[in-house]
This record gives sequence, structure tokens and C-alpha cells, in this order.
Amino acid sequence: MLGSIGDTADRTRAFAALTRISTLYMVTRAGSGHLGSSFSACDIVSHLLLNELSDPFEEHGDVYFSSKGHDVPSLYAALIGLGRLPEEQVHQLRRLGGLPGHPDVATAHMPFNTGSLGMGVSKAKGLILADRLQGRSRRVFVLMGDGELQEGQVWESLGGAARGGMSELTLIIDHNKIQSDTWVNDVADLGDLEGRFESYGWGVLRCDGNDVDQLAKTFTARAERFPDRPAVIIADTVKGAGCATFAATSMPADEWRYRFHSGAPSDKDYLSAHAELVAAAAALLAAAGLETLRLTDEAPRPAPVPAGGPRLPEVYGKTLSQRASEDPRIVALDADLVLDTGLIPFVQAHPDRFVEFGIAEQDMVSAAGGLAAGGLLPFVHSFSCFLHSRPNEQIYNNATEGRRVVYVGSLAGVLPAAPGHSHQAVRDVSALGAVPGLVILEPANAEEVAAAVDYCLTADESVYLRLVSAPVPEASATIAAAPLRTGHGHTVREGGRTVAIGSGPVVLGQLLEAARLLDADGIDLRVVNLPWLNRVDSGWLATLAGEADTLLVVENHYTHGGQADTVARALLEAGLAAPPAFHGIGLTEVPLCGSPEEVLWAHGLSAGQLAERVRTFATT
Amino acid sequence: MLGSIGDTADRTRAFAALTRISTLYMVTRAGSGHLGSSFSACDIVSHLLLNELSDPFEEHGDVYFSSKGHDVPSLYAALIGLGRLPEEQVHQLRRLGGLPGHPDVATAHMPFNTGSLGMGVSKAKGLILADRLQGRSRRVFVLMGDGELQEGQVWESLGGAARGGMSELTLIIDHNKIQSDTWVNDVADLGDLEGRFESYGWGVLRCDGNDVDQLAKTFTARAERFPDRPAVIIADTVKGAGCATFAATSMPADEWRYRFHSGAPSDKDYLSAHAELVAAAAALLAAAGLETLRLTDEAPRPAPVPAGGPRLPEVYGKTLSQRASEDPRIVALDADLVLDTGLIPFVQAHPDRFVEFGIAEQDMVSAAGGLAAGGLLPFVHSFSCFLHSRPNEQIYNNATEGRRVVYVGSLAGVLPAAPGHSHQAVRDVSALGAVPGLVILEPANAEEVAAAVDYCLTADESVYLRLVSAPVPEASATIAAAPLRTGHGHTVREGGRTVAIGSGPVVLGQLLEAARLLDADGIDLRVVNLPWLNRVDSGWLATLAGEADTLLVVENHYTHGGQADTVARALLEAGLAAPPAFHGIGLTEVPLCGSPEEVLWAHGLSAGQLAERVRTFATT
Repeated sequence: MLGSIGDTADRTRAFAALTRISTLYMVTRAGSGHLGSSFSACDIVSHLLLNELSDPFEEHGDVYFSSKGHDVPSLYAALIGLGRLPEEQVHQLRRLGGLPGHPDVATAHMPFNTGSLGMGVSKAKGLILADRLQGRSRRVFVLMGDGELQEGQVWESLGGAARGGMSELTLIIDHNKIQSDTWVNDVADLGDLEGRFESYGWGVLRCDGNDVDQLAKTFTARAERFPDRPAVIIADTVKGAGCATFAATSMPADEWRYRFHSGAPSDKDYLSAHAELVAAAAALLAAAGLETLRLTDEAPRPAPVPAGGPRLPEVYGKTLSQRASEDPRIVALDADLVLDTGLIPFVQAHPDRFVEFGIAEQDMVSAAGGLAAGGLLPFVHSFSCFLHSRPNEQIYNNATEGRRVVYVGSLAGVLPAAPGHSHQAVRDVSALGAVPGLVILEPANAEEVAAAVDYCLTADESVYLRLVSAPVPEASATIAAAPLRTGHGHTVREGGRTVAIGSGPVVLGQLLEAARLLDADGIDLRVVNLPWLNRVDSGWLATLAGEADTLLVVENHYTHGGQADTVARALLEAGLAAPPAFHGIGLTEVPLCGSPEEVLWAHGLSAGQLAERVRTFATT
Repeated sequence: MLGSIGDTADRTRAFAALTRISTLYMVTRAGSGHLGSSFSACDIVSHLLLNELSDPFEEHGDVYFSSKGHDVPSLYAALIGLGRLPEEQVHQLRRLGGLPGHPDVATAHMPFNTGSLGMGVSKAKGLILADRLQGRSRRVFVLMGDGELQEGQVWESLGGAARGGMSELTLIIDHNKIQSDTWVNDVADLGDLEGRFESYGWGVLRCDGNDVDQLAKTFTARAERFPDRPAVIIADTVKGAGCATFAATSMPADEWRYRFHSGAPSDKDYLSAHAELVAAAAALLAAAGLETLRLTDEAPRPAPVPAGGPRLPEVYGKTLSQRASEDPRIVALDADLVLDTGLIPFVQAHPDRFVEFGIAEQDMVSAAGGLAAGGLLPFVHSFSCFLHSRPNEQIYNNATEGRRVVYVGSLAGVLPAAPGHSHQAVRDVSALGAVPGLVILEPANAEEVAAAVDYCLTADESVYLRLVSAPVPEASATIAAAPLRTGHGHTVREGGRTVAIGSGPVVLGQLLEAARLLDADGIDLRVVNLPWLNRVDSGWLATLAGEADTLLVVENHYTHGGQADTVARALLEAGLAAPPAFHGIGLTEVPLCGSPEEVLWAHGLSAGQLAERVRTFATT
């Protein structure tokens, strides 16, 4: 339809306007997603797809991908608009079999898995080297966020592109000036950004990234001015650009928090934004002499608000803040996730003992080592997916110094599954389990979180606190906490000689529900909470094993390197005359994206499936 | 004695000259160590200790540490010269109970464990924050290498120091222009280095770092010109400065490789350097009116050249180069360790398919993902200690894309133990064991290395190839390789119903020797080579278990998260009626620094100790 608009810029503007409408629908219906980032990048993506890329959907054509990946809803919307993704997928954002929360190569036209930040230029360099070695020639365009520039890998990756004279490579910075929930300059100022890129030998250009005329001119200038080297276009954008409801420019001067980084809008915000976007699109279409929009999309139905107890990071943050009032050793370190790690109460109560590092996990962890060397007790925070892996060597280095550091990884485990595997931490116990002097602890509910914080304050060892961010199911919320003794578990549901061990709200919730289901079959499943994931007390385990014919360990983790391995090894080394039959259950594949129910089922971890497995084990 | 030299600069020059003599002795006697880096930094360290630091040996005093850590021999030598480390330790570099190959907090006046690169500014920031919170005030001086600046963490860490107005912090770059074995500019040019630091808001100064007059003036200027912020002193030095034998300025114009980065000098080079250094020191002392040097040090006795087969990385590199001649998919990626990873034959034969990333492991691994996406088969190289941990998230990201990448970590395991724990990879199997679609393979000798390379070329999965760099003991060198079948082992010494599983040249060498020792007791130990560290075939294992009363797994790895866990879990899940008694043996503490024999003994992994453990197990 838009093909009939003769003027390139008008066509691009109209396309971007329609893309924003679809994006709003998709994120609202999904119940989560990154609106602000999708909207800030929308004009850039529209220009690239419509005007800049040569044969972008062909094997030999130019390549575009987003390194930050958070803005993928608007990319999906654009590809659907171009007929390059199935139209019905507009209803399937963040659903099983649909469009993942961050880009995945299983989706058409997604060259790389992104969402883990800072990898884009490195990946592009590899692709260009492969092209050169095989006699191919195409251009590669990479979008990065400005917050993303805090990752050290970005600054590792630039020099090689300049040395290689990679004129094929263009980096576009979606410079919307807000990372997660607040201003980049308040988190980790980027300094002289143009100077930084120039010092690595890159060509640098700058433009208004929400102005398609300027974008067109700037991409032309990129080719003309820097024909022999990589170049960056610093595209100054507005987070949430395209409608006043979401635009960061609408924020009151005294408001520190931008509310539309992630998550679905409220009904009110949805209606307001929708009206704005439709009006803007209609005006563009009318100006081009096209018919008025006929909206066929149904009203989005966001996911229902999940039931259950309070989120564990919230409880954690409040508890830590309270303890810090009495314990001057406590310092909290954060990597741009102050909201999601529950730290806002801490920041408000103890601003002098809160340190924001930006998206720079390695820096944060080594600085924690320095704080510990200086006599304090640092609590280090990020999403688990980043905390266990990005600063893995730095955590080990702290451990070899014998420093006491508490690492708090929220968003641990397979749920919530909507963001996709870049954000699902199901390898953390393995990646950190062998760090000497580091004990891994996963509390199951609010009461156990409070006990865990107190454990961290007094333990001899460093602690990795594995915090599930998904809502605590009712069944887990009401588990009575027992005193935390390293390597000891406690029974949370009495039962017979079929015993299931688990930890955390997700697994214990499913196991308690499975036990209820099994009651009907006369199988009396005993459920044991063992919150220690890389330690088990051999005496305690031997006693439990003596009371079991069948012992299961169920994990919110890959089947390798987690609690099941630890328990199995200890059980075998205990040398019992007649050990129980043993079965470990966990993830065997890269975690899928979808609703909680969909994804637990897809990985065989739903209560019904666990009950079925127990039935099989108990009768054979 | 030097206190009688009135002129500060003369005293510093004399101190540095004597420090270099001790450093040469220490490294030569140890049989390894970093001469080039120690010599380039020696004048800086001497100036800091003698003239710049306030009360450096007091709790409240200024702090100095080297982030690169490689130059620690000259720091030790200086501290011994100042009476701050015991004099007899001059003979104990890289020995058990002596002075570790890289700094460790267990040694006096070492504030941090370093040698893992890029962490220095982060650690310093943490220490300064702790000081500020506790009302302390002292300055922190950090030395970094120029090659070290390639690590992304450095560029994560700078901004926070500027934002915090950390005038306490001074960074000194030992800008000797050579990293590992060749020129920084040829590896990963640093570009406009002053501009890079300035773009982060740091004060920047520059001077000749081997000229103590210039150093003194520059440190004074640092305080005067930048009283309110962190500053960097780019100290232009010569690698190996202080004597012509080691000085990089002595290199022929056509020589690419600097020969004195690590390792002990030859007898000829030792004698030449020693003569030069003694003459230089004598001249300085004579000019100051002091007596001639009376050298009391005994002639250094370097460690004997170890016996055994060829080093595995050498065999590996030759094999890969041969295969690459026939297989155009193969590309080799390196992170500044082309010599130690065995890649020189590859570089010479296939320069177009070799990519040097510098000390930037994250960049390298993500670029490998890009190369794989482009249809090639990348082989990624570094020391295992860095490769399994620094780019841990990047390796996982590649895995979630289903890319086939081969990661080759040399210097794996506890030996050689001379560099110390920053370089001893004994956590790699745990850290990577749960990466989906990644199989971990540790070949035992040259023949198995060749088979492993062929396995990597044809496997369905990605592979982490764990390469021991220590010399292959005779007993392991002569093991006949069996065809590599994933998860299957083979018997390398027939025996009775006491069975030991192991992998790699170190463990199998000790086990075969233990079996020889046990023969005398009538215990016929069967030794099985299982080169797969995160996989075991359950059928194969059940058969083996049926032939065993006692099953041991011995690991060149921490006891957690490695092969013993994998085997134990599989054995228990096999559900055998009468499983054998099971015992896992591995490292339980952070690995120690020392000679191979000392360190194997200290960790209970020597043949004699293993034989003793088997005796205990077999008779109970």
C-alpha cells in the first residue's frame, strides 16, 4: 500500500508510524516488552529496511541486526509489515512458538541471538571476515544502545575493525540517553563519545535519529566520507519517540524514572498512545492521498496479573536496607538494574552506601573485591544471567583472595520466560559451583529470603544468592522456613518413601502441586526443600536416603552441573548399602520463550508432568 | 647502604640497578618468570617505593599494586632490598611456600591477587570507596601494562573513577610497546591513547618511564595539574630496559619476536646480562663514593629441563595447520598467545586464516560466532584460565545460536604450577560443563591430540579442547590412543577390580605410576582413560562398573563440577544392583604455586599419595 507514496521520506515516515502502532499492540498483548527502546529505534530501522539495505532478505544481501536486541518488537512489526514474517505472529510476541522477547536465530531474518549486551561489533567482524575469506561482499549494519556502550566488550571490539579497514561495517548508536529506567548521564556518563570512537580510528557521524531526512543524508555521508573504514552514526533519539505518551521528553523535570523501558503500558497509557499513533499515521496517509487507516487489530489482551506472594527481589531489597541500618559494613553495588534487583529502598535509605556501575559487571565485581579488601561487606547485584557469566573470572579472582562478597542474581531460573534465553539463568549453579569458598543459596519465599540475607551477613564464605523474580506461587509462599544450616534441607511436605528434593519458589511450587495430584493415585510424595545448590551435608543426606526408596532432584537449571549432580555425588560417596533409586530432572535444552505455563510444560517441569514422572518411577 | 647517597635520583637509580640484579637471579633460578616486564617497570617501581609513596608499608599508608602482575619479580626484589620481604625468599621465586609467580595477598605487601588482566582500576576504586566510607584517606597507585589495555574491563572502569572525582587514584601505564612476544601495535594498536583516557575525563601525563628524573617531575605535575580527579601517567618504557641483552631496542629490525617476555634466560644471556647489570650498578655506586658491590648470591641453578614427550599445544598447532591445508573451513583466532597456543605453524602456513584479537577474549569469542554464522569453523585459542571464564557469557551466547565453535584452552590444569593460580585452570570443566551442545575433551598425549583435532572437525557439537601444556610424562606419552567415541573411555592399564578413571597426561601419568607402586602390595590397579569430561556413555560405564569393586575418578580440577560429578551422577542413575564403591579425588583448595612435584604433592595428587589412597580404599 505504502508503495504508492512517491516520496521516499514520506513513505518511510508512514511506515514507521504504522510500525509503532503494531509494536504497541504486540507489547501490550504480550504483557511485557521494551516500548521505549523500540520506539526510539523505529525510524532508524524503518529507514534501513526500506531505503538503505541492499537485498536484506536475500542470502547475499546486506545484513542488519540489533546488538541490544531489546528493541526487537519494532523490528518484528516492521518485518510483518513488509510480509517477511507471518502476519499472525503479531499476536504471538513472547509466546511459545511465537516471537521471542529478544532476537533468536530461529526466527527468520535474525542473524544473531542478541540481548546479552555488547557483542554486536564482535559478531559483525566475524561475519565480515567470513565474507572476505569466501569472496562475498555485503555490508553489515549494527544497532547498539547508548547504555550498552558501558560494556567493556564494545571497546575491545572497535580496534580490530579499524585495523581491518572494515568499510563494510556501520554501527548506529540509538542514543536515546536513557538506560533501563533513568538517564545514562546519571548512571555512567559516556564522556566525549565522538572522541572515544575517533580515538579507535573509526569514522564518526551524528544526526537526529528520529528524522528520516537526516538519517538518509547521514548514511550517504557515511559512504562518501569514510569509504575505507568502519564508521559509527551517533543517532540522537528520544526514548519512546513517536508519541507524547511514551516520549522521554514528556517526563516532568523532577522525575528520575522513565516508566516505559520494559513492561506493558497501563490501559490508560495504551489508549492514549494508541489514539496518538493512529492520528499521526492517519495524517501521514492523508497527506499522501491514501485512504484512512482501517484498523483490523483486536484489542490487545494483556496477560492477567500473576497471583502469588510478593516478588523475592522486593523482599530482599527491603531486608537488606533494614539490615544496613544496623550493619555499617554493608555496601550495595548495582549494574543498571536498581529497580529489578529490589534496591530502591536501599538507595533511598543509604545513598552513600550505594554504588551504581552501569552495565559494567566486570568492573562492579572487581570493585567489590576492593571494597572487601577495605574491610566492607559488598552485596553485588545484577540479573543472574549476566552476573554468573560476564564477570566469571572476576568472581573467581575475588575468591582466590579469600574476600567475602555476596553476589545477588535476580531473574534466576527459567521463569519469567517472556524475555527469552539471554535472560533466563539456568546455568548459573554450574558456572559458579566450583568457585572455592562460594556457597550457592536459593530461597523459596519471603521468609527464607530474610533468613538468607542474615545468613549472608554471618557466613564464613562468600555467597551467591539465587533469586527467582517470577511471582511466588501460593504453595511456595506458605512454606515455613527452617533455620538455614549449610547443606541441610527440611521437609516441606511429609510423605512416604518417594522423596523429591528441590529449591526455590518455582520448583517447590510445582512439586507441592504434583504431590497433590499424586494423592489421588495413593502415592504420598514427600517434598524436601534443599536451598543449597552446591553443598549437601552427607550425614543429613544419608538419613534422608535411608527413608527413601526413590529420590528425585528437580532443578530450575540445566541437568548438568547443578544440585542433582551435587546430591548424586554425595549419595554415591556416602557408600550406603542400598541407596535409593535416583533421578534428576531439569532442563535439557536451551530454555524457550513463552508464558510461564507454556514454558514449564515445554520443558517437562509442570506439576502434571512431574507427577507423571513420579508415577513412572514409583511403579517401576 | 644506599641511604648514604644524598641525591634522590642517584639513589633511585642505584636501587633500581641492584633490584635488576636480584630480579635476574630470581627468574633464572626459578626457571621462569617475566624478565622483560620486570625490567621495563623497575624504575617506576623503584621511584614509587623510595620517593613517592607515603608510609607504603603501614596500614594507613599509600597503596601500590601492579594490575598486570607479571612484573612481580622486580617488585619482590625491591621489597627484599628494602627489608620488607625475607632475604632468603630471593631463592624461592615460584616455589611452594615462596614467592608466587603472580601477586597473591598471602605475601606481605600484596594488596590484591593480580595476573588476571584488566582488573586493577576496578579494585582500586573499591578500595578508595571503602576508604572514603570509613573516613580514611590515602592514595592508590596502580601499574598496568599497555597490552593489558586491550581488556574491555579497563574501559568499563575508567568512567566511574572520573565521576567519583577520585584524585586518590593514579594509574601508570608501563608503555613498553611489547605484549607477550611482539609489538602491541602489530597486535591491537592502541590508537590515540592520550585521547582515549581524556575522553573518559581522566587527567593524562606522559614521560620516559625509565628516567627517574622525569618520573619524579611527572608525579609532581600529576598532583598539581589534576588535584580533583584521577590521572594516568603514560610511562614510555623499553621492554627489558636496563641492559642491552634484554632491551627490546637491541632487537634486529627484522625480528618480530621479543625473546624475554617469559621464561628463564639461556646461560649465555644470563652471563651477558649479569655482567652488564653488575657493571652498571658498580658505576652508579662508584659515582656515589660507595664501595664496590660484593655479590654474595650463589650462581642461579635453573630447574632442569623436564623430561617427557612433546608439549601438546605444539602437536596441536602442527596438526591444525596440516588439517587446514585440506579443510578451507578452518580459521584460527588468538588472544595474544600465538606462541603458547602452538599456532606459529598455522600463522606461517595460513596467514589469511589467522586472526589476532589481542588480549580481548570476549571480542574473540563473539567474532568466532560471527565466523561460524558465515559458514566457517573457528578454532578459538587462549590459556584455559582466561578462555573458560572471561568470555563465559559469549561462549554461552554462541551455544544458544547452535554455532559450531572449537574452543582450545591450553595451560589447562594445575601444572605448570609456577605461574600461580591466576594461570592454573582447575575450574574450567565446571564453568563450561553445562553449556548446551558443548563437549569437553582432554587428550592425554600427542596421538590423542591429533585424534581430538579430527574429532573437532567432524563432531556434531561444539568442543572445548582442554590442553595440558606441561610436559607429557613418559608413561602418558606411550599410551596407545583408541578411537574417540563420545563418552567412551578405554583401559590403558589392565588390572583387577579396583579401577581408576582419569584423563590427560598429568592424571594418567600419576595413575600409571601409582599402579606400578601398588604392584608391590599385590593391588592390581586398572587405569582407564576417559577423555570426555562432561559426558559419559551410560552403557559403557555400566559395563565398567560391573567389573569394579572400587571406582575412583582422579581429576586435574576442583572436586566440584568436573568429571567425578558426571561419572557419579551417571553411575547412580544407571540403577545398578550393586554399584562399586566410589571415590572422587581432585583439588579441594586454590592451587598452589611451585614446582610440579611440590604442587602435586601439596594437593595429594602425586603417584605415591594416590597409591596410598587406593590402598586405603581397597582394604576397607
